[in-house]
Amino acid sequence: MNQSELDSLAALAERLAAASGDVIRRYFRTPVGVDQKADDSPVTIADREAEQAIREILVRERPEDGIHGEEHGIERPDAEYLWVLDPIDGTKAFITGRPLFGTLIALLHRGRPVLGLIDQPVTGDRWLGVAGRPTLFNGKVAKTRPCPRLPDALLNVTSPDMFAADEFARFDRLRREVRITTYGGDCYGYGLVAAGFVDLVVEAGLKLYDFAALVPIVEGAGGRMTDWQGAALGPGSEGRVIASGDAAVHDAALALLA
Amino acid sequence: MNQSELDSLAALAERLAAASGDVIRRYFRTPVGVDQKADDSPVTIADREAEQAIREILVRERPEDGIHGEEHGIERPDAEYLWVLDPIDGTKAFITGRPLFGTLIALLHRGRPVLGLIDQPVTGDRWLGVAGRPTLFNGKVAKTRPCPRLPDALLNVTSPDMFAADEFARFDRLRREVRITTYGGDCYGYGLVAAGFVDLVVEAGLKLYDFAALVPIVEGAGGRMTDWQGAALGPGSEGRVIASGDAAVHDAALALLA
Repeated sequence: MNQSELDSLAALAERLAAASGDVIRRYFRTPVGVDQKADDSPVTIADREAEQAIREILVRERPEDGIHGEEHGIERPDAEYLWVLDPIDGTKAFITGRPLFGTLIALLHRGRPVLGLIDQPVTGDRWLGVAGRPTLFNGKVAKTRPCPRLPDALLNVTSPDMFAADEFARFDRLRREVRITTYGGDCYGYGLVAAGFVDLVVEAGLKLYDFAALVPIVEGAGGRMTDWQGAALGPGSEGRVIASGDAAVHDAALALLA
Repeated sequence: MNQSELDSLAALAERLAAASGDVIRRYFRTPVGVDQKADDSPVTIADREAEQAIREILVRERPEDGIHGEEHGIERPDAEYLWVLDPIDGTKAFITGRPLFGTLIALLHRGRPVLGLIDQPVTGDRWLGVAGRPTLFNGKVAKTRPCPRLPDALLNVTSPDMFAADEFARFDRLRREVRITTYGGDCYGYGLVAAGFVDLVVEAGLKLYDFAALVPIVEGAGGRMTDWQGAALGPGSEGRVIASGDAAVHDAALALLA
């Protein structure tokens, strides 16, 4: 896999996002029905049709690749290339009319995330991370900002309710040390780390399709993204993730979370 | 004060929002300095300059009216008409690059909110509520949706950290009864109640400039907005507010909050 191959896969990822965005914009702020899934999370026809739109392109253009999507399951998980899809990360934001959810498209090469894209189809914000390239935010190079100390850090988390009790205690220890904590955002918060406006995101309960796309985006902007033990994220991770713009603040946060 | 007078005041409010939006867009996602105010809340040059831009127009066009702004204080508080301004409601969202803060412009007539405007200058979303007129969301009539039962309700709150301990206990009782709770949003959540995508917003610690503009918007869309005792909101309110799309769910929530 060389850089020009990666670039053409990135161009494909952008076309996948365009296709899902067309579906999502059509349903945004319309009264869609909301079903509960087995894990109690909500899902709509927009989630299902957006993933389907992406899959149709992948099956046609990359028939040998694997696909792991939140809504329509796993095909060829052992393929060299695995596309990992979350058509609407932040379904709760989507159904309440808040334009900060995102479409997540990741590409894993032998289990390692080498490409990630966040697309917000309503605001038009898009982040693209490709191994070996700087992260792009709306077409421009994105960089995390320096913020080595917790007392200066802006922390974002989607919801305090995403933590189990012992996880919350650890999160809360961190929350008390940072300057400001903001809530809500799903994938968008990680994009804001990459863009240099947020210093930390700490979450739990994430699935592979929730975090795989975020890793190349955060790392390609100069940030770090690991689990709460500081280990690299991959298909076997437990879903406790931390993303930081500054390696020093990452280590300081890990000391409180571990 | 007749309806055509109110309509011309609404047109003025839209010009005020356009002026503040020009300032805010210039500073959004730029590295602005963040100061702490006496109440520990953050403020930036964008808050201050946006309010100044509004005040300059008001002083010129409505010299006899009072002005109560978050950043530059109170003038002529006993005037028949009092403009109540929060140039950036959601400064924490603003400084972290999240486009869900809003400019709030309210007009009180002898203490009663008769006009309210929420402007999101980045997404372009705007809500306008005028006494005796239906609320407009992006120029179209907005209506809350029916949702009489708490187990069906979508609840939004800016942050769990905005509650004092006894307030949180009451909020948490409500949170456990609703279908879904989402976090983050500031004034935007109230706009989504008016637009029929959120059923409840419950918050505490709000100042007059945080809620005055929201009352005509929520009520003009068919919703209710009161304090936690069910009393009308005004200059003397303690800042515990609840907004609902459906009167029945409002009463059910009040029973848990009171």
